Amino acid sequence: MGSPVHRVSLGDTWSRQMHPDMESERYMQSFDVERLTNILDGGAQNTALRRKVESIIHSYPEFSRKDNYFMTQNERYKAAMRRAFHIRLIAQRLGWLEDGRELGYAYRALSGDVALNIHRVFLKALRSLGSEEQIAKWDPLCKNIQIIATYAQTELGHGTYLQGLETEATYDAATQEFVIHSPTLTATKWWPGDLGRSATHALVQAQLVCSGARRGMHAFIVPIRSLRDHTPLPGIIVGDIGPKMDFDQMDNGFLRLNHVRVPRENMLSRFAQKCSSHRLTEQSWGGAAAPGEDRAEVLPDGTYIKLGTAQSNYLPMVVVRVELLLGEVLPTLQKACVIATRYSVIRRQSQLRPSDPEAKVLDYQTQQQKLFPQLAISYAFHFLAVSLLEFFQHAYTAILNRDFSLLPELHALSTGMKAMMSEFCTQGAEMCRRACGGHGYSKLSGLPSLVTKLSASCTYEGENTVLYLQVARFLVKSYLQTQMSPGSTPQRSLPPSVGYLATPDLARCPAQRAADFLCPELYTTAWAHVAARLIKDSVHHLQTLTQSGADQHEAWNQTTVIHLQAAKAHCYYVTVKGFTEALEKLENESAIQQVLKRLCDLHAIHGILTNSGDFLHDAFLSGAQVDMARTAYLDLLRLIRKDAILLTDAFDFTDECLNSALGCYDGNVYERLFQWAQKSPTNTQENPAYEEYIRPLLQSWRSKL
Amino acid sequence: MGSPVHRVSLGDTWSRQMHPDMESERYMQSFDVERLTNILDGGAQNTALRRKVESIIHSYPEFSRKDNYFMTQNERYKAAMRRAFHIRLIAQRLGWLEDGRELGYAYRALSGDVALNIHRVFLKALRSLGSEEQIAKWDPLCKNIQIIATYAQTELGHGTYLQGLETEATYDAATQEFVIHSPTLTATKWWPGDLGRSATHALVQAQLVCSGARRGMHAFIVPIRSLRDHTPLPGIIVGDIGPKMDFDQMDNGFLRLNHVRVPRENMLSRFAQKCSSHRLTEQSWGGAAAPGEDRAEVLPDGTYIKLGTAQSNYLPMVVVRVELLLGEVLPTLQKACVIATRYSVIRRQSQLRPSDPEAKVLDYQTQQQKLFPQLAISYAFHFLAVSLLEFFQHAYTAILNRDFSLLPELHALSTGMKAMMSEFCTQGAEMCRRACGGHGYSKLSGLPSLVTKLSASCTYEGENTVLYLQVARFLVKSYLQTQMSPGSTPQRSLPPSVGYLATPDLARCPAQRAADFLCPELYTTAWAHVAARLIKDSVHHLQTLTQSGADQHEAWNQTTVIHLQAAKAHCYYVTVKGFTEALEKLENESAIQQVLKRLCDLHAIHGILTNSGDFLHDAFLSGAQVDMARTAYLDLLRLIRKDAILLTDAFDFTDECLNSALGCYDGNVYERLFQWAQKSPTNTQENPAYEEYIRPLLQSWRSKL
Repeated sequence: MGSPVHRVSLGDTWSRQMHPDMESERYMQSFDVERLTNILDGGAQNTALRRKVESIIHSYPEFSRKDNYFMTQNERYKAAMRRAFHIRLIAQRLGWLEDGRELGYAYRALSGDVALNIHRVFLKALRSLGSEEQIAKWDPLCKNIQIIATYAQTELGHGTYLQGLETEATYDAATQEFVIHSPTLTATKWWPGDLGRSATHALVQAQLVCSGARRGMHAFIVPIRSLRDHTPLPGIIVGDIGPKMDFDQMDNGFLRLNHVRVPRENMLSRFAQKCSSHRLTEQSWGGAAAPGEDRAEVLPDGTYIKLGTAQSNYLPMVVVRVELLLGEVLPTLQKACVIATRYSVIRRQSQLRPSDPEAKVLDYQTQQQKLFPQLAISYAFHFLAVSLLEFFQHAYTAILNRDFSLLPELHALSTGMKAMMSEFCTQGAEMCRRACGGHGYSKLSGLPSLVTKLSASCTYEGENTVLYLQVARFLVKSYLQTQMSPGSTPQRSLPPSVGYLATPDLARCPAQRAADFLCPELYTTAWAHVAARLIKDSVHHLQTLTQSGADQHEAWNQTTVIHLQAAKAHCYYVTVKGFTEALEKLENESAIQQVLKRLCDLHAIHGILTNSGDFLHDAFLSGAQVDMARTAYLDLLRLIRKDAILLTDAFDFTDECLNSALGCYDGNVYERLFQWAQKSPTNTQENPAYEEYIRPLLQSWRSKL
Repeated sequence: MGSPVHRVSLGDTWSRQMHPDMESERYMQSFDVERLTNILDGGAQNTALRRKVESIIHSYPEFSRKDNYFMTQNERYKAAMRRAFHIRLIAQRLGWLEDGRELGYAYRALSGDVALNIHRVFLKALRSLGSEEQIAKWDPLCKNIQIIATYAQTELGHGTYLQGLETEATYDAATQEFVIHSPTLTATKWWPGDLGRSATHALVQAQLVCSGARRGMHAFIVPIRSLRDHTPLPGIIVGDIGPKMDFDQMDNGFLRLNHVRVPRENMLSRFAQKCSSHRLTEQSWGGAAAPGEDRAEVLPDGTYIKLGTAQSNYLPMVVVRVELLLGEVLPTLQKACVIATRYSVIRRQSQLRPSDPEAKVLDYQTQQQKLFPQLAISYAFHFLAVSLLEFFQHAYTAILNRDFSLLPELHALSTGMKAMMSEFCTQGAEMCRRACGGHGYSKLSGLPSLVTKLSASCTYEGENTVLYLQVARFLVKSYLQTQMSPGSTPQRSLPPSVGYLATPDLARCPAQRAADFLCPELYTTAWAHVAARLIKDSVHHLQTLTQSGADQHEAWNQTTVIHLQAAKAHCYYVTVKGFTEALEKLENESAIQQVLKRLCDLHAIHGILTNSGDFLHDAFLSGAQVDMARTAYLDLLRLIRKDAILLTDAFDFTDECLNSALGCYDGNVYERLFQWAQKSPTNTQENPAYEEYIRPLLQSWRSKL
């Protein structure tokens, strides 16, 4: 079969011909790949629109990323700014809306390698935290790029713990200004994107000091660079934080403020006159590290009026987090799967039998074991993230109707899924990279940058350990809730994702043979059982410690390792449950349902085997049952093998988007790797060491003669 | 207390003053840090010599690595060549011997960031594979750098599987030359270090074709660049393979040969006239992928004389592998531990109790759980590698006496330890990096380059999965050996590392309380039990498959996932056993013995908890016993906490060697991070995007007015 037109785009001469080892993988198709792509896109019309946008983007040389791997940090920054510039031109010309699908697809096609992304975060924060007057003033300035804005929260010495931030905003009633100041070196803002070399304005999070009293964190719009010549304004020290593991295109910056004055109106003050009913106590968020900002106004004379803590403002940020998972984190793992799987049917190594030709490495069980769990996760997380977004829409509607009951679960789900997805995607991409052997270490494979990009996601938008512990707090509370009211059908008030805490539990898994482990109800129940047991275990540990005299904070810290374990099991349960529910909706797509069910089974069983101790601990599973699960698992690897290329094709990434010498659609791996290497500056520039070192070394023996 | 003179060397003004949070960590010392350093160095005189070499190296600006993080690949290469050049000058001037301790310490001080390392591998290969005449000719040329040599084995399409290499060497009796040729693109040599831009000669592994017959892999010395002007010689296409995840300093290269002629004498032919008694069958190495080269000579008329497969030649390469682990892999993890632990007593975040100041992050149980198992592994691997080197000396003496009985175990140990150490060190360093939050993502922390450097070690010198499977083959054979001779005391002939296969086994662990898990005999026995059970399990699985009709190759492939599990458990057992034996030798150092025993206990128990399913599977441990182990583990974390900084100090890395803004001895983390960032080209060079993109963007609204 030929290759679909929308895929052949690198313009290499080899692309005209498919590698026979790749062609044979696509010869027999047990399901309709295009249909699966449509399902992933949320409809055929989305697929069509996405491809149209991709073909537009890839037609402009300004957007090319092919020289990325040869560039310095400065060059990457400039190229990302070039893309930001041209994407605005094109969006204007074609009438792409700011939050429309087209721009979303354009960013996907460019793998987010575009400058001024934080500018958009600023906009979202402004709309969520600013008063109507403030939004009316700053929103158009921002949208028309009359200013370039960033969001400056993290400091050199302070991250996750918001109350620890040191930057101060002291109100001066005499001039009706705030004096924004970095009192220490550790108060230096550090990490904000677009800050290092681009931003003209920053939304600065600072401790408000007002009439002599400290009033907690508030947000202030601070001009930092001249709109005339871009030089730092008086009192501002600003720059780039230097080289990072990845994100070379982004100028993460630092900012020191020396008594910088901004007018009173620059403190964001949404809800200054309204919405106090939106107040929620911090407790409902499950812990000290939970989000929430003081809403307040400072009157001209310096009187501070606290308007409460408006937790519902957090909702847009939750959506941002899930969109990030769907738009940035998950596709990165998917690309790694595509690249590694495609390479694994081209690469041949050793023989399965002495007389055979060398085998495709994907035919080895160990290679399948490396790649297929990652492929399963790629699909599991996709369906989960889609259903989470739906849940958020539902919750948002409820909140508009003043029903805040869904907020705790919303927070726990978004937190847990951020932690689990970033962790698993990072591990999974690294597994894919290593599965490509030496070539996976070459940047030209595309895999190193996928891994290093994902690594950051374990830390940004909430460090994963902190997030898991927030989930744990929610779990402990949910469990205690089931204990406090044993007679009053507590399952009604329990959020659905922890409904299993109030469900009668099996003491033993009923599986009697390997095939029983292919039953979604069986493994979903098994995961629920383990999550419930670990949650009970953590509560029991907490209680034992407090009964033996530890205060509750000490007891909490001494239980965190156990809490982590419980939170991770709960999150795994959520992904298994979510995947099985997504499959149920595919009842009219039996071929696709069947092939995806194998991935769902694999995901559930792989987790059981990897964490078998948790299932054996109370004899829920016996050793013999674990062996059955293993048999089912090894069988699944063999079954998934024949659909592996098609399952990765279905993600429908263009070759330009993959930007990988190993992962192109046509399978011409070695030609591309060889040709790309020729373009490296190490080949196109003169040897910088020859005259100075190599020649003298080689000729020094002559002087010794 | 003040800081030892040998450590203060960065010359920063802050170094005069120790950060109080660091100082307090060193105030009470439960053991003599200097003494532990001496033990790690193998004696106080070694410590003294090492520090002397370090102070010499660090006194030359030519060796400075402080700008590494800002350099391009070309600049890194040039700097590494500069170091190679100057280190030769210094070694000559000071009389450092080629294989002497001084040069070893110099490489350690420079973290191996020196060019022409493969030149040394060439030398070792020459001495091991060449005839006496060949060594006499090439050794001095190489030692005096009259040539620069590389070792070219891996090809674009072929790695681990030696027989699959495509490069051909066809003998032409008419001219008494070999014609070396790359018949396909995939035959291109790919990855050899020092090849891309430096080498003048390559030791090329190629398929010998002689009198029309293919004779397997042999090694040929091939001149590739002109000694006059360094241009590629006729028929040679050579260059750099481009950007990689790390190792920018090394010019990994490619090489295509178009009918290049070399004289008959350039085929290495050790044992041409002797040592045929060194022959060993491949079987004794445990499998098809095991090392071994055909020894042969080609007579002038083209007659091929096979002299056998001289497996004992592999011994020097085994030593190289273990030296690599000790010299490159392990110190990289140790540095990551030093950096992350030091940062974790400076970084403060949140409060353990509401009224407390923000706590050092190292006081959180979750942070201890991230770092201390890596610290334990750092020590476990050190003692193991030292004892392996001793075993190799012992085996080498035996081989000189024609006793080859130790070879199978030698191979299994070096293979298994390479796989396990590279895997655990990579995971451990990444864990350390993530434990430093956002700052661990900055290259200035030093952590990204440690992780990316280690990542390569999972692939080079034998891909880990392949190596583990070689161990598995050894384990299967050892187990079958115990089965074949049930009455004849098989333990006598079993290698010591698998002696447990013939030892009567407990069915149940006798532990009754948490403290029982602090008994080395108890946990060593537990690991032996699990390794033995998994080996039996894999053999049983193999036999079941063959009995149900699978051929042995198919059965092997379908059991590889289980083999991997068994091999890993065996390797873990070896590290636990090795650590406990090393502790026994420290009986005269009770304070040090006590603090190291905690790490040994932690290493053993951490492994049990991480793999608890393997211990629960046959009820060797009960769930209650796993909980006891967990209690012991959590207690250990708290105990190790107070010695953590001292245990990392004992590695005695200089600040220059660490090259980390987060990890310096004085703890002045933030000052250094801020100052180092200022030197970044993103700050010292003009904004490359301002005139072209930012200014037009910001001013475009004016044109719209």
